[in-house]
Amino acid sequence: MVRLHFSVRLAYDVIDPAADFIFNIHAARTSCQRIVSERLAIGQDLVPLLDGDAAGNRLMRLRARQGPLQVEYEATVDIAHRAAAPDELIETPIAALPAGALIYLYPSRYCQSDKLCKLAFDTFGAVAPGYARVNAIQQWVQSQVAFRSGSSDGGTSALDTLAQRTGVCRDYAHLMIALCRALNMPARFVSGIDYGADPALGPTDFHAYVEVMLSGRWYVFDASGVSPPMGLLRIGTGRDAGDIAFATIFGRVSSWAPLIAIEAVEDGGRGFVAPAYCREALSTADC
Amino acid sequence: MVRLHFSVRLAYDVIDPAADFIFNIHAARTSCQRIVSERLAIGQDLVPLLDGDAAGNRLMRLRARQGPLQVEYEATVDIAHRAAAPDELIETPIAALPAGALIYLYPSRYCQSDKLCKLAFDTFGAVAPGYARVNAIQQWVQSQVAFRSGSSDGGTSALDTLAQRTGVCRDYAHLMIALCRALNMPARFVSGIDYGADPALGPTDFHAYVEVMLSGRWYVFDASGVSPPMGLLRIGTGRDAGDIAFATIFGRVSSWAPLIAIEAVEDGGRGFVAPAYCREALSTADC
Amino acid sequence: MVRLHFSVRLAYDVIDPAADFIFNIHAARTSCQRIVSERLAIGQDLVPLLDGDAAGNRLMRLRARQGPLQVEYEATVDIAHRAAAPDELIETPIAALPAGALIYLYPSRYCQSDKLCKLAFDTFGAVAPGYARVNAIQQWVQSQVAFRSGSSDGGTSALDTLAQRTGVCRDYAHLMIALCRALNMPARFVSGIDYGADPALGPTDFHAYVEVMLSGRWYVFDASGVSPPMGLLRIGTGRDAGDIAFATIFGRVSSWAPLIAIEAVEDGGRGFVAPAYCREALSTADC
Amino acid sequence: MVRLHFSVRLAYDVIDPAADFIFNIHAARTSCQRIVSERLAIGQDLVPLLDGDAAGNRLMRLRARQGPLQVEYEATVDIAHRAAAPDELIETPIAALPAGALIYLYPSRYCQSDKLCKLAFDTFGAVAPGYARVNAIQQWVQSQVAFRSGSSDGGTSALDTLAQRTGVCRDYAHLMIALCRALNMPARFVSGIDYGADPALGPTDFHAYVEVMLSGRWYVFDASGVSPPMGLLRIGTGRDAGDIAFATIFGRVSSWAPLIAIEAVEDGGRGFVAPAYCREALSTADC
Repeated sequence: MVRLHFSVRLAYDVIDPAADFIFNIHAARTSCQRIVSERLAIGQDLVPLLDGDAAGNRLMRLRARQGPLQVEYEATVDIAHRAAAPDELIETPIAALPAGALIYLYPSRYCQSDKLCKLAFDTFGAVAPGYARVNAIQQWVQSQVAFRSGSSDGGTSALDTLAQRTGVCRDYAHLMIALCRALNMPARFVSGIDYGADPALGPTDFHAYVEVMLSGRWYVFDASGVSPPMGLLRIGTGRDAGDIAFATIFGRVSSWAPLIAIEAVEDGGRGFVAPAYCREALSTADC
Repeated sequence: MVRLHFSVRLAYDVIDPAADFIFNIHAARTSCQRIVSERLAIGQDLVPLLDGDAAGNRLMRLRARQGPLQVEYEATVDIAHRAAAPDELIETPIAALPAGALIYLYPSRYCQSDKLCKLAFDTFGAVAPGYARVNAIQQWVQSQVAFRSGSSDGGTSALDTLAQRTGVCRDYAHLMIALCRALNMPARFVSGIDYGADPALGPTDFHAYVEVMLSGRWYVFDASGVSPPMGLLRIGTGRDAGDIAFATIFGRVSSWAPLIAIEAVEDGGRGFVAPAYCREALSTADC
Repeated sequence: MVRLHFSVRLAYDVIDPAADFIFNIHAARTSCQRIVSERLAIGQDLVPLLDGDAAGNRLMRLRARQGPLQVEYEATVDIAHRAAAPDELIETPIAALPAGALIYLYPSRYCQSDKLCKLAFDTFGAVAPGYARVNAIQQWVQSQVAFRSGSSDGGTSALDTLAQRTGVCRDYAHLMIALCRALNMPARFVSGIDYGADPALGPTDFHAYVEVMLSGRWYVFDASGVSPPMGLLRIGTGRDAGDIAFATIFGRVSSWAPLIAIEAVEDGGRGFVAPAYCREALSTADC
Repeated sequence: MVRLHFSVRLAYDVIDPAADFIFNIHAARTSCQRIVSERLAIGQDLVPLLDGDAAGNRLMRLRARQGPLQVEYEATVDIAHRAAAPDELIETPIAALPAGALIYLYPSRYCQSDKLCKLAFDTFGAVAPGYARVNAIQQWVQSQVAFRSGSSDGGTSALDTLAQRTGVCRDYAHLMIALCRALNMPARFVSGIDYGADPALGPTDFHAYVEVMLSGRWYVFDASGVSPPMGLLRIGTGRDAGDIAFATIFGRVSSWAPLIAIEAVEDGGRGFVAPAYCREALSTADC
């Protein structure tokens, strides 16, 4: 069992008389990820509207007045990973996929898998299907793309990254997802926070990682390879980054960079271990 | 009440030893659209797998063997439109939208609303908010874009159509949706079949139209203006055409153009009227 | 006659052991633009290689060593505009264009005129051909696009600007050029420096403007409308911004923003007038 | 010496009252490619306007009336290749390039070399500079891209081909050019007709190939690898396909596919050999 504690601090200055925000910063609840405690503090005496969308993301809406707005959220989360032997995980035939997974077979705005069929087949067609093939895709993406802050922006897609070979976690995830879908594997984008990255990569930030459905269950992959999958905490799940921005803002607003912290609770007596690389495939989704 | 009867005939030739298909050709079921009867006939003695996705689309999966494959579907559908006075329909504040509608505020692959904010505001910012503004968007799209078969393809997006000013129903819908979202109105793409189009436009085909949320409910608009909204029969609902192709094929397959027919049952005694243009705003969705 | 004096100061720090530069900062020589004097100062004791390309641009190549590099260029230039009555300028039939103008009929990377034919025809097809039509295009571009520093980047094309309706001088020029070409008028991109812009727009910078061929001669238009055409000094001429960057760098180099100044010599006794808006169409090219 | 005879037959139906055409179908004249004889036949009793553009392309303009238009051109051409030992060809330093070659270092619409720097360096950075590296690029492009008629269209760029890995000769050429430019080698696009392709690839058509500057001279490469470089006959030279369409049409016109034939004159007595693969690098340009 992994116990993680994280906090997110967001600061804005609303320029218009009022502005609406949709946040997706709450830790997700799944059968594997339990929220032990959480705390939310919002400036301007606002009462947030909290609810979930069809994909299970916990959304928070606010309508803020002109002036400064601060949002703080922190949570302690327990993650009980389902582990599987990689060798036993197979690519699920399309006829056997859960209906809810079909949408993740299709191309999306930033993951144009329909353009990558031949490349995916040429590069990974000879790899053994199943976990090994997904792993080969992850390794290829990690080896081909250089991590470079600021080398991409919100409009960068998997095709751009394939050409430019530089990006950040979000770009690695998009390219890996597009390649998986091109081989008819459902793959989706997860936003969250990672524990265990090399501090040399910079301060803790939101992270983006990947889930691929194998043997009827979603397994976690860190496309950029910067963190152990065991340390990936889920916030939002979607087809690509366009679905699950941590903040969507309607109105003129100045923004500051988010301040994020995460720590792992290590307490052998209570069964909490620090996230580490492991040989098993890990799943944290409801299915 | 409108009663429509339609049929879809699809023909393929599977080249690979086997191929998977995901069809979205079944008439949708909503609180306003009731299926009176339906019939499905599939070649190759295949048993289809029928289920629905999170958006309520009725999906049919098949795994076909090499050789010819025919799929026929027909249905009789009753549509009880909810009508509203256009003047009473308002743009729902973001804080008051149902959570399930939020995803339809965001840009999607073919509806890049994030690029059109200034154009939308400059062109429609002075129009009275509500139904009148949506109507102005529809009229503008219809007036700016020329209907021309073959002038676009599956990769054409709202931005392409904005530049090229030609397209088919799908392109009109994408551009209208993108402009509505750019003004913070949830808007979505509906695939279906239309009754009442000018026969000069060619044989009956699948159609694409638009829903915009006003006063908390989805109202129907025919972006291309070729058919009366009362004659729009719903099959699939999604963010754009990428979500709800009538057929997604995995494997090498030759395809023939679909054969589609639709007719309206007119029977005043039983209360069935032929679809016609009307002044009310119409809704056929669950909310 | 207009006499302008301008200076350009560029500063770099070469990170690699050596780096190549291609500069296009020298004032152009045409039959209308005469160089009275010019001065060049280059750091690192480098001897520049100066020559011209097929389009008449004066290129300067340097190979610099690791470390700081400064480049200063200043020139005094006399511009004797050829003026014409706008009403007399006609659109040249394709068969009558000089062969060298044909390339400027075609779409280029940032001016995708092939995508804008219908928009151009719908919007400007009813305007009287000739100078009035080009003027209508300029006015339309200026009215539709908002000048906003930082709203575009080196990858922004005419299609992007058509959608986003914001940009800087380069973007206005690309959109205007694309619309002119879509109506079969040769149009090209000129880089230079403008005299007479509103100081509120910020410090003097390189400028981009447009030339359109009318009655067999290239006439000057300021697509962004910020400066009087009489104050436009030519440096480079090309199909779009991609042809005539002021600096193209091969190697890892840090760059500082260019420092640019321009002033007009007013001396009635010698016949020099300050640039001002005028009713005539102006030409400064060789033909 | 190679002697080739080729013919081009073009057929149109002008729908508008008149339409302008710019053709680029005449065999180029260079110091290596001599025109022995040529014949031109144009319907409608039209007198063509023949001239050349700045890049040396021979352009033919026609203004045709409503109705059928046929254009036939045939020529006999002698090509005296300059051959060089591949091992002796070096990449020319930027400072030593002829000024006229600089434009071919820059990205162009269909050859976005600015996006491919890292890929080019990662893939070919360790290959010995010079002919061997260009050859490695050609081999890589040929091995990665599958030749498939109809898999691309006039809007397909090098980035599209990099993703999709299918295309026709034009697409191979664009990708190879983009990769060469990304490594700071001038590279350009040549349209022409090839002798010696495998007849299984279909009837003779216009061809696209590549020139790269090495040791100060343009050397020929067939990016798609379908024909021996010795059998490549030059028509037009440009930065990419956008510069040198064989026909640019202004007005509404129906077009038929061109009919093209080419044959080699073999006559040992007069010194004419049939084009064949050879080990030398070949050049046919003026420099």
